[in-house]
Amino acid sequence: MIIPQLYGGIEAGGTKFICVIASGPGHIVEEVRFSTTTPEETLENAIQFFQPFVSSGKISSIGVGCFGPLDMNPKSSTYGFIAPTPKPHWSNTDVRGTLQRGLDVPIALDTDVNVAGLGESVWGASKGFDPSLYLTIGTGIGGGYIKDGKPLLGLLTPEMGHLRIPHNRELDPFNGSCPFHGDCFEGLASGPAIEKRLGLTGVNVPENDAFWGIEADYIASALMNYILVLSPKKIILGGGVMQRRFLFAKIRQRVQELLNKYVASASVLENIDDYIVPPGLGNQSGSLGAIALAMQLTARAR
Amino acid sequence: MIIPQLYGGIEAGGTKFICVIASGPGHIVEEVRFSTTTPEETLENAIQFFQPFVSSGKISSIGVGCFGPLDMNPKSSTYGFIAPTPKPHWSNTDVRGTLQRGLDVPIALDTDVNVAGLGESVWGASKGFDPSLYLTIGTGIGGGYIKDGKPLLGLLTPEMGHLRIPHNRELDPFNGSCPFHGDCFEGLASGPAIEKRLGLTGVNVPENDAFWGIEADYIASALMNYILVLSPKKIILGGGVMQRRFLFAKIRQRVQELLNKYVASASVLENIDDYIVPPGLGNQSGSLGAIALAMQLTARAR
Repeated sequence: MIIPQLYGGIEAGGTKFICVIASGPGHIVEEVRFSTTTPEETLENAIQFFQPFVSSGKISSIGVGCFGPLDMNPKSSTYGFIAPTPKPHWSNTDVRGTLQRGLDVPIALDTDVNVAGLGESVWGASKGFDPSLYLTIGTGIGGGYIKDGKPLLGLLTPEMGHLRIPHNRELDPFNGSCPFHGDCFEGLASGPAIEKRLGLTGVNVPENDAFWGIEADYIASALMNYILVLSPKKIILGGGVMQRRFLFAKIRQRVQELLNKYVASASVLENIDDYIVPPGLGNQSGSLGAIALAMQLTARAR
Repeated sequence: MIIPQLYGGIEAGGTKFICVIASGPGHIVEEVRFSTTTPEETLENAIQFFQPFVSSGKISSIGVGCFGPLDMNPKSSTYGFIAPTPKPHWSNTDVRGTLQRGLDVPIALDTDVNVAGLGESVWGASKGFDPSLYLTIGTGIGGGYIKDGKPLLGLLTPEMGHLRIPHNRELDPFNGSCPFHGDCFEGLASGPAIEKRLGLTGVNVPENDAFWGIEADYIASALMNYILVLSPKKIILGGGVMQRRFLFAKIRQRVQELLNKYVASASVLENIDDYIVPPGLGNQSGSLGAIALAMQLTARAR
């Protein structure tokens, strides 16, 4: 019997941490979840979980998909730190360094959404489709673009959520909820924007509410821009807002209307139901993506 | 004396073709320009120009930066063809195949704007800055994104010009000139959009006309979106509209206002004069980019 190589993965979210030991989707051998409290306590919990697997040599690397904003510039003195953030306690936390000092094993870190996109590209809905885009629409809006098997890194890690898109104030007088830009994409279409506008959370807004047509228009406008700029072969929409599955049909139709046959590809023109899709890994895109990141790190080291 | 290796390059524009024999910016040994007429005549002119250099073994490859829309999918049966276009005669022209049949030397083809971006990244303003974005704002608007030394290719070659951006109709009641989308970025900000709106070409609109503030806002909105999605380390703005050099200062200022310190990089916050710049190769980005494309083809073959 061949025992598959195991890796460590952390889905480091702003609300909870999920730590797993796994070799892939069919083989998660250990999993633990705990609340995100102070950096000291939370990262120590993670270190305690992984320590025995590291000591016994059962895992050869750990991948981390971390909430942000994250400094991903390898040349920066604060590489792997969480940048200043309104989230209490976590500003300027050295996530990568703290884990690395606690665990004697190579550690790879990337943004939560890049890692989720990576997981989807290795085992999920975008497997075999490169480049691909993973977009989460929830508390915030963020995108992970996977090209040549790895997340795009430029001047910074692109976060993609704050696009400038058309906003018809007659139809939707809401000023937007973004502290930086007001009515950018995230300011108009994220979960908090929905709640602030309507006074109830997206999960409680009835399916027949006219607002969903407006929401679909914003998401479709942003998708049009991503398609024109990034030309992904697959688009995955995750996050809390996209749990309202009826949105997919509205968004797909609106993308086709907006593009108006400009993008001459069967993926958009004919097979859009297979082009804009939910995550293939369900709610495990992040934790399995962290495993995929660890696998890549080990493969590069060989 | 070391004689540098020579390459062939074609800047295949919708109005004129420029064919060069060169090893780089300082060493263009032959150049010819002729009008773009029918495909048969124009491509035959190019073949006639290059034939002696191919026969004598003076050039080992030819790069072509071609106007579009271009089918850049290597798996497509019409790879290297010009797709259906309103431009008379050129719909479904097999540019790559015709040149290849006429000239017994490897030929690489890419879009005009990708090739110009490549030229800038090898010898021009984005040299040493990867990834970079080259944007042309003229008869049309198109972008070339250079990552890891080569143009991005996805589902299609991204063309980037038709972004959905905010359009304040009180300030600018113009409906837009894009036959597909009306008031997309190209429909609002291209040369023809300016002319259709104001009744005079951009070159004749006075610098103190309030319209330029509107134009700068559209360009800055699109740049904000490119920055958030592609995170380029350098942005080059070329094309006819950008010949009005006073636009650069307006655009840079508006990009900073719109981003509102969200992108925490000194390139944007402090050094934007070096971040959003004119082409370093002047009007030779395209022809020298074609030389760079040929160089890459020969290097890969070795």
